[in-house]
Amino acid sequence: MIYNRIALIGLGLIASSIVWAAKRGALAGEIRGFDASPEARETARRIGLCDVFDSAAEAVEGADLVILCVPVGAMGQAAEAIAPGLKPGAVVSDVGSVKRAVIEAVTPHIPKGVQFIPAHPLAGTEHSGPEAGFAALFDNRWCLVVPSPESDAANVADLRAFWEGLGAHVDEMDADHHDLVLAVTSHTPHLIAYTMVGVADDLRRVTDSEVIKYSAAGFRDFTRIAASDPTMWRDVFLSNKDATLEILGRFTEELFALQRAIRTGDGQLLHDYFTRTRAIRRGIIDAGQDTSAPDFGRAPVGRK
Amino acid sequence: MIYNRIALIGLGLIASSIVWAAKRGALAGEIRGFDASPEARETARRIGLCDVFDSAAEAVEGADLVILCVPVGAMGQAAEAIAPGLKPGAVVSDVGSVKRAVIEAVTPHIPKGVQFIPAHPLAGTEHSGPEAGFAALFDNRWCLVVPSPESDAANVADLRAFWEGLGAHVDEMDADHHDLVLAVTSHTPHLIAYTMVGVADDLRRVTDSEVIKYSAAGFRDFTRIAASDPTMWRDVFLSNKDATLEILGRFTEELFALQRAIRTGDGQLLHDYFTRTRAIRRGIIDAGQDTSAPDFGRAPVGRK
Repeated sequence: MIYNRIALIGLGLIASSIVWAAKRGALAGEIRGFDASPEARETARRIGLCDVFDSAAEAVEGADLVILCVPVGAMGQAAEAIAPGLKPGAVVSDVGSVKRAVIEAVTPHIPKGVQFIPAHPLAGTEHSGPEAGFAALFDNRWCLVVPSPESDAANVADLRAFWEGLGAHVDEMDADHHDLVLAVTSHTPHLIAYTMVGVADDLRRVTDSEVIKYSAAGFRDFTRIAASDPTMWRDVFLSNKDATLEILGRFTEELFALQRAIRTGDGQLLHDYFTRTRAIRRGIIDAGQDTSAPDFGRAPVGRK
Repeated sequence: MIYNRIALIGLGLIASSIVWAAKRGALAGEIRGFDASPEARETARRIGLCDVFDSAAEAVEGADLVILCVPVGAMGQAAEAIAPGLKPGAVVSDVGSVKRAVIEAVTPHIPKGVQFIPAHPLAGTEHSGPEAGFAALFDNRWCLVVPSPESDAANVADLRAFWEGLGAHVDEMDADHHDLVLAVTSHTPHLIAYTMVGVADDLRRVTDSEVIKYSAAGFRDFTRIAASDPTMWRDVFLSNKDATLEILGRFTEELFALQRAIRTGDGQLLHDYFTRTRAIRRGIIDAGQDTSAPDFGRAPVGRK
């Protein structure tokens, strides 16, 4: 057991996965929770997720660790709401996909004697809500912890141990580098997937039904990403604006180069480009970050 | 049994999957094959794929159905190579991802008394070669058959029955509409995925190792698509140039609109857009074209 009492603010996919994984690892004596939505609180109670309270300040009372699991745009408000209930010596953390903006929003509300140590588990699915969580979500995934120079070393060590107990590998990183890395590995890919799915939805000559029927040709991979929570992603883009726009600019530049190669018939450039990108896939599989099974293992494999 | 003898030219993922699925369904009395690569022929012989011949013309002798399973850019050459061996009354088909360009490349080489009826199974994985195939690849996927007004109805019916026997649903479509639909559901998504992976590979501030370690945040889905066969995809883009460039133009337009919304902080536009795209995902799952399991079923699910 790492903490006697933890509290989760926001009871969606990530928080509910933390609960099941913390129970699996016996990491916390007691788990309390709050969600701003009465419906989510009711669902959480019904499935026996944790001790659910009707106010954020009440939920965090006596907690050694409080994790803010709300969309990035709601972090400031959540921090303000819990402030009156925080006990001296408590650690507040979060799971937001953006770090600089969250630090700016949360820090002003953190009382003296409480430390805010941001974190971000790189894990998720396209599903949302208190029923979407499962214990294995963080297994073998990375959690990036973003301490400040003021962070107490023992507090950081406990938070790292907690995430390791949830199944994750832990790295430390500064907020700006985090935001740039995530713009590449997550934010821009999500925006592009949303765009591609939006284009397909718009096209009137290709009916919805055709787009859907024939989606297995590649498109369906995009639709999974583009089915992620709209509020969460709106907030990510608005709060990691600079890095996302920078990587988007780079993406557009490359896309135009490939588009030009198609227009001019430069097969060599295309072939070289497509060969180079294959190597990254191999790296990801070798690093244990994805399955090598064809089609993510979706298709039943077996020769006969 | 639908055909006494079939022949497959090119022994990659699609051809080898046709073999295993045809054996599973007992659709052909005899299966012959040829690949331009001696290495692929040797592999096919080693795994007992089919009767492998050292020339294309020899492989197609006496075959009732010949399927060209080579990259789109090699279709014309393959048709030329098999022409001397084709028996009168034979049907030639293909599996190319583009139809207009393949029809133009193949038709001039088809002898009198032989019919060319193009087809395109919308199925695949990121793996290639004679060992990549498996019997279930086409199960519940769509195969688009593209007959011409001259196509004999009985020949079309046999080809449809063959693909249904392989596990697929069959639709008929004209070549130009096929090429536009595929530009939306397959070609443009592939180009975009290649581009995103290329951008990540280029970025020097974000090291390869970081891109790979933290890929589970969304990026890894793109790398699967961007690991597909480079030659096949080079040919697809060069031969479906017009439709791909048209959809790419549409994509860029939408991407710029979202980019502008990020820059100006228009959260409502982003939220509305991301909500709309969620519905398409539900349509695809309801149509049985993808799994509803989180993360394509990659993650082990289970609350405790």
